[in-house]
Amino acid sequence: MSQTSLFDIYRDYIACLNRQDWATLGLFVDDEVHYNGRRIGLSGYRAMLERDFEEIPDLHFNVGLVLSDEPYVASRLLFDCAPKGKFLGLDVNGRKVSFTENVFYEFEDGKIVQVWSVIDKAAIEAQLAQTGP
Amino acid sequence: MSQTSLFDIYRDYIACLNRQDWATLGLFVDDEVHYNGRRIGLSGYRAMLERDFEEIPDLHFNVGLVLSDEPYVASRLLFDCAPKGKFLGLDVNGRKVSFTENVFYEFEDGKIVQVWSVIDKAAIEAQLAQTGP
Repeated sequence: MSQTSLFDIYRDYIACLNRQDWATLGLFVDDEVHYNGRRIGLSGYRAMLERDFEEIPDLHFNVGLVLSDEPYVASRLLFDCAPKGKFLGLDVNGRKVSFTENVFYEFEDGKIVQVWSVIDKAAIEAQLAQTGP
Repeated sequence: MSQTSLFDIYRDYIACLNRQDWATLGLFVDDEVHYNGRRIGLSGYRAMLERDFEEIPDLHFNVGLVLSDEPYVASRLLFDCAPKGKFLGLDVNGRKVSFTENVFYEFEDGKIVQVWSVIDKAAIEAQLAQTGP
Protein backbone atom coordinates (compact mmCIF):
# COMPACT_ATOMS: atom_id res chain seq x y z
CA MET A 1 0.00 0.00 0.00
CA SER A 2 1.49 3.36 -0.95
CA GLN A 3 1.92 6.34 1.38
CA THR A 4 -0.65 8.19 -0.69
CA SER A 5 -3.31 5.63 0.02
CA LEU A 6 -2.63 5.70 3.77
CA PHE A 7 -3.05 9.48 3.61
CA ASP A 8 -6.27 8.96 1.65
CA ILE A 9 -7.62 6.50 4.18
CA TYR A 10 -6.73 8.84 7.03
CA ARG A 11 -8.40 11.81 5.34
CA ASP A 12 -11.55 9.72 4.82
CA TYR A 13 -11.41 8.56 8.43
CA ILE A 14 -11.31 12.17 9.70
CA ALA A 15 -14.20 13.08 7.37
CA CYS A 16 -16.15 10.13 8.80
CA LEU A 17 -15.61 11.44 12.34
CA ASN A 18 -16.66 14.96 11.39
CA ARG A 19 -19.85 13.61 9.78
CA GLN A 20 -20.44 11.50 12.94
CA ASP A 21 -21.00 8.71 10.47
CA TRP A 22 -20.75 5.87 12.96
CA ALA A 23 -22.23 3.32 10.56
CA THR A 24 -19.07 3.47 8.44
CA LEU A 25 -16.53 3.79 11.27
CA GLY A 26 -15.78 0.07 10.89
CA LEU A 27 -14.33 0.74 7.43
CA PHE A 28 -11.46 2.60 9.11
CA VAL A 29 -11.17 1.09 12.59
CA ASP A 30 -10.42 -2.56 13.32
CA ASP A 31 -12.73 -4.65 15.52
CA GLU A 32 -9.83 -5.25 17.91
CA VAL A 33 -8.53 -1.69 18.06
CA HIS A 34 -6.34 -0.68 21.00
CA TYR A 35 -6.33 2.87 22.40
CA ASN A 36 -3.30 3.94 24.45
CA GLY A 37 -2.37 0.31 24.99
CA ARG A 38 -5.80 -0.91 26.07
CA ARG A 39 -8.10 -2.98 23.85
CA ILE A 40 -11.35 -1.07 23.55
CA GLY A 41 -12.57 -2.62 20.28
CA LEU A 42 -14.63 -0.94 17.60
CA SER A 43 -17.70 -0.64 19.84
CA GLY A 44 -15.68 0.98 22.62
CA TYR A 45 -14.04 3.31 20.10
CA ARG A 46 -17.40 4.34 18.71
CA ALA A 47 -18.79 4.86 22.23
CA MET A 48 -15.79 7.08 23.07
CA LEU A 49 -16.36 9.23 19.98
CA GLU A 50 -20.11 9.47 20.57
CA ARG A 51 -19.42 10.60 24.14
CA ASP A 52 -16.93 13.18 22.85
CA PHE A 53 -19.55 14.68 20.50
CA GLU A 54 -22.17 14.59 23.26
CA GLU A 55 -19.87 16.46 25.64
CA ILE A 56 -18.58 18.80 22.90
CA PRO A 57 -21.45 19.63 20.51
CA ASP A 58 -19.25 21.76 18.20
CA LEU A 59 -16.40 19.22 18.08
CA HIS A 60 -14.56 19.24 14.76
CA PHE A 61 -11.33 17.43 13.88
CA ASN A 62 -8.85 19.65 12.01
CA VAL A 63 -5.64 18.08 10.78
CA GLY A 64 -2.78 20.51 11.32
CA LEU A 65 0.03 18.22 10.23
CA VAL A 66 0.06 14.62 9.10
CA LEU A 67 2.96 12.26 8.46
CA SER A 68 2.88 8.81 7.00
CA ASP A 69 5.56 6.18 7.47
CA GLU A 70 3.93 2.83 6.88
CA PRO A 71 2.31 1.18 8.70
CA TYR A 72 2.04 4.33 10.83
CA VAL A 73 0.39 7.71 10.55
CA ALA A 74 1.14 10.58 12.95
CA SER A 75 -1.17 13.54 13.10
CA ARG A 76 -1.35 16.84 14.93
CA LEU A 77 -5.02 17.64 15.41
CA LEU A 78 -6.23 21.16 16.18
CA PHE A 79 -9.42 21.82 18.11
CA ASP A 80 -11.43 24.99 18.71
CA CYS A 81 -14.53 24.04 20.62
CA ALA A 82 -16.69 24.58 23.66
CA PRO A 83 -17.11 21.50 25.88
CA LYS A 84 -20.46 21.80 27.69
CA GLY A 85 -19.32 20.80 31.17
CA LYS A 86 -16.23 19.02 32.41
CA PHE A 87 -13.58 18.02 29.90
CA LEU A 88 -10.53 15.96 30.92
CA GLY A 89 -11.61 16.69 34.47
CA LEU A 90 -11.53 20.46 33.93
CA ASP A 91 -14.54 22.73 34.45
CA VAL A 92 -14.76 24.17 30.97
CA ASN A 93 -18.52 24.76 31.19
CA GLY A 94 -19.18 25.93 27.65
CA ARG A 95 -16.17 28.17 27.26
CA LYS A 96 -14.36 28.15 23.94
CA VAL A 97 -10.96 26.54 24.18
CA SER A 98 -8.22 25.78 21.66
CA PHE A 99 -5.97 22.79 22.09
CA THR A 100 -4.04 20.17 20.18
CA GLU A 101 -3.77 16.41 20.14
CA ASN A 102 -0.64 14.63 18.92
CA VAL A 103 -1.66 11.15 17.89
CA PHE A 104 -0.09 8.07 16.29
CA TYR A 105 -2.02 5.36 14.47
CA GLU A 106 -0.90 1.92 13.40
CA PHE A 107 -2.69 0.48 10.36
CA GLU A 108 -3.18 -3.14 9.38
CA ASP A 109 -4.97 -4.10 6.16
CA GLY A 110 -6.08 -0.47 5.78
CA LYS A 111 -7.64 -0.22 9.25
CA ILE A 112 -6.52 1.41 12.47
CA VAL A 113 -5.40 -1.23 14.99
CA GLN A 114 -3.54 0.96 17.50
CA VAL A 115 -3.94 4.57 18.59
CA TRP A 116 -1.54 6.40 20.90
CA SER A 117 -2.93 9.82 21.72
CA VAL A 118 -1.87 12.72 23.92
CA ILE A 119 -4.17 15.72 24.35
CA ASP A 120 -2.69 19.02 25.51
CA LYS A 121 -4.57 19.34 28.79
CA ALA A 122 -2.06 21.88 30.12
CA ALA A 123 -2.99 24.26 27.28
CA ILE A 124 -6.66 24.13 28.29
CA GLU A 125 -5.77 24.71 31.94
CA ALA A 126 -3.71 27.75 30.95
CA GLN A 127 -6.65 29.21 28.98
CA LEU A 128 -9.09 28.64 31.84
CA ALA A 129 -6.65 30.26 34.27
CA GLN A 130 -6.09 33.28 32.00
CA THR A 131 -9.71 34.29 31.62
CA GLY A 132 -10.64 33.43 35.22
CA PRO A 133 -13.76 31.67 36.46
CA MET B 1 18.36 13.72 2.31
CA SER B 2 17.12 10.15 2.76
CA GLN B 3 14.72 8.98 5.47
CA THR B 4 17.55 6.92 6.92
CA SER B 5 19.68 9.96 7.49
CA LEU B 6 16.84 11.85 9.22
CA PHE B 7 16.43 8.83 11.53
CA ASP B 8 20.18 8.86 12.10
CA ILE B 9 20.19 12.55 12.95
CA TYR B 10 17.26 12.07 15.31
CA ARG B 11 18.94 9.12 17.05
CA ASP B 12 22.09 11.19 17.52
CA TYR B 13 20.02 14.13 18.81
CA ILE B 14 18.37 11.92 21.47
CA ALA B 15 21.78 10.52 22.44
CA CYS B 16 23.04 14.12 22.77
CA LEU B 17 20.17 14.92 25.16
CA ASN B 18 20.79 11.81 27.25
CA ARG B 19 24.50 12.71 27.52
CA GLN B 20 23.46 16.28 28.48
CA ASP B 21 26.03 17.24 25.90
CA TRP B 22 24.93 20.87 25.53
CA ALA B 23 28.07 21.88 23.68
CA THR B 24 26.96 19.88 20.64
CA LEU B 25 23.21 20.64 20.84
CA GLY B 26 23.70 23.22 18.09
CA LEU B 27 24.58 20.45 15.64
CA PHE B 28 20.95 19.27 15.87
CA VAL B 29 18.93 22.35 16.78
CA ASP B 30 18.73 25.50 14.69
CA ASP B 31 19.58 28.90 16.17
CA GLU B 32 16.05 30.09 15.38
CA VAL B 33 14.18 27.04 16.67
CA HIS B 34 10.48 27.40 17.53
CA TYR B 35 8.85 25.36 20.30
CA ASN B 36 5.07 24.95 20.19
CA GLY B 37 4.82 27.96 17.88
CA ARG B 38 7.02 30.28 19.91
CA ARG B 39 10.58 31.21 18.92
CA ILE B 40 12.82 30.24 21.80
CA GLY B 41 16.08 29.91 19.85
CA LEU B 42 18.91 27.54 20.56
CA SER B 43 19.80 29.22 23.85
CA GLY B 44 16.20 29.04 25.07
CA TYR B 45 16.01 25.41 23.97
CA ARG B 46 19.19 24.56 25.84
CA ALA B 47 17.97 26.42 28.94
CA MET B 48 14.68 24.47 28.82
CA LEU B 49 16.54 21.14 28.65
CA GLU B 50 18.98 22.09 31.40
CA ARG B 51 16.02 23.03 33.61
CA ASP B 52 14.36 19.69 32.82
CA PHE B 53 17.47 17.77 33.93
CA GLU B 54 17.80 19.97 37.02
CA GLU B 55 14.17 19.28 38.00
CA ILE B 56 14.35 15.58 37.00
CA PRO B 57 17.82 14.24 37.88
CA ASP B 58 17.10 10.76 36.44
CA LEU B 59 15.57 12.09 33.21
CA HIS B 60 16.19 9.80 30.24
CA PHE B 61 14.68 10.05 26.75
CA ASN B 62 13.46 6.68 25.45
CA VAL B 63 12.13 6.55 21.91
CA GLY B 64 9.10 4.26 21.82
CA LEU B 65 8.13 4.87 18.21
CA VAL B 66 9.59 7.11 15.55
CA LEU B 67 8.29 8.01 12.09
CA SER B 68 10.00 9.96 9.38
CA ASP B 69 8.25 11.72 6.53
CA GLU B 70 10.59 14.43 5.32
CA PRO B 71 11.07 17.12 6.41
CA TYR B 72 9.27 15.85 9.53
CA VAL B 73 9.95 13.36 12.28
CA ALA B 74 7.29 12.25 14.75
CA SER B 75 8.30 10.47 17.92
CA ARG B 76 6.59 8.91 20.90
CA LEU B 77 8.90 9.34 23.86
CA LEU B 78 8.59 7.23 27.00
CA PHE B 79 9.68 8.48 30.40
CA ASP B 80 10.15 6.72 33.74
CA CYS B 81 11.52 9.23 36.17
CA ALA B 82 11.19 10.99 39.50
CA PRO B 83 10.81 14.79 39.27
CA LYS B 84 12.19 16.31 42.48
CA GLY B 85 9.40 18.77 43.20
CA LYS B 86 6.69 20.22 41.00
CA PHE B 87 6.44 19.02 37.40
CA LEU B 88 3.95 20.55 34.97
CA GLY B 89 2.42 22.21 38.02
CA LEU B 90 1.88 18.88 39.77
CA ASP B 91 3.35 18.01 43.18
CA VAL B 92 5.33 14.97 42.17
CA ASN B 93 7.93 15.45 44.94
CA GLY B 94 10.34 12.69 44.01
CA ARG B 95 7.80 10.00 43.19
CA LYS B 96 8.49 7.75 40.22
CA VAL B 97 6.09 8.43 37.36
CA SER B 98 5.71 7.02 33.87
CA PHE B 99 4.41 9.15 31.05
CA THR B 100 4.69 9.77 27.34
CA GLU B 101 5.34 12.70 25.04
CA ASN B 102 4.10 12.74 21.45
CA VAL B 103 6.26 15.18 19.55
CA PHE B 104 6.72 16.40 15.98
CA TYR B 105 9.89 17.96 14.61
CA GLU B 106 10.47 19.87 11.40
CA PHE B 107 13.99 19.71 10.01
CA GLU B 108 15.76 22.16 7.73
CA ASP B 109 19.29 21.52 6.50
CA GLY B 110 19.59 18.66 8.98
CA LYS B 111 18.59 20.73 12.02
CA ILE B 112 15.40 21.00 14.06
CA VAL B 113 13.60 24.27 13.30
CA GLN B 114 10.16 23.53 14.78
CA VAL B 115 9.00 21.33 17.65
CA TRP B 116 5.35 20.63 18.51
CA SER B 117 5.17 18.65 21.72
CA VAL B 118 2.38 17.35 23.93
CA ILE B 119 3.19 15.69 27.26
CA ASP B 120 0.63 13.36 28.84
CA LYS B 121 -0.01 15.36 32.01
CA ALA B 122 -3.29 13.52 32.65
CA ALA B 123 -1.38 10.22 32.95
CA ILE B 124 0.83 11.70 35.69
CA GLU B 125 -2.21 13.09 37.52
CA ALA B 126 -3.82 9.65 37.40
CA GLN B 127 -0.71 8.04 38.91
CA LEU B 128 -0.48 10.62 41.68
CA ALA B 129 -4.19 10.15 42.47
CA GLN B 130 -3.86 6.35 42.54
CA THR B 131 -1.08 6.13 45.08
CA GLY B 132 -2.38 8.98 47.22
CA PRO B 133 -0.37 11.80 48.78
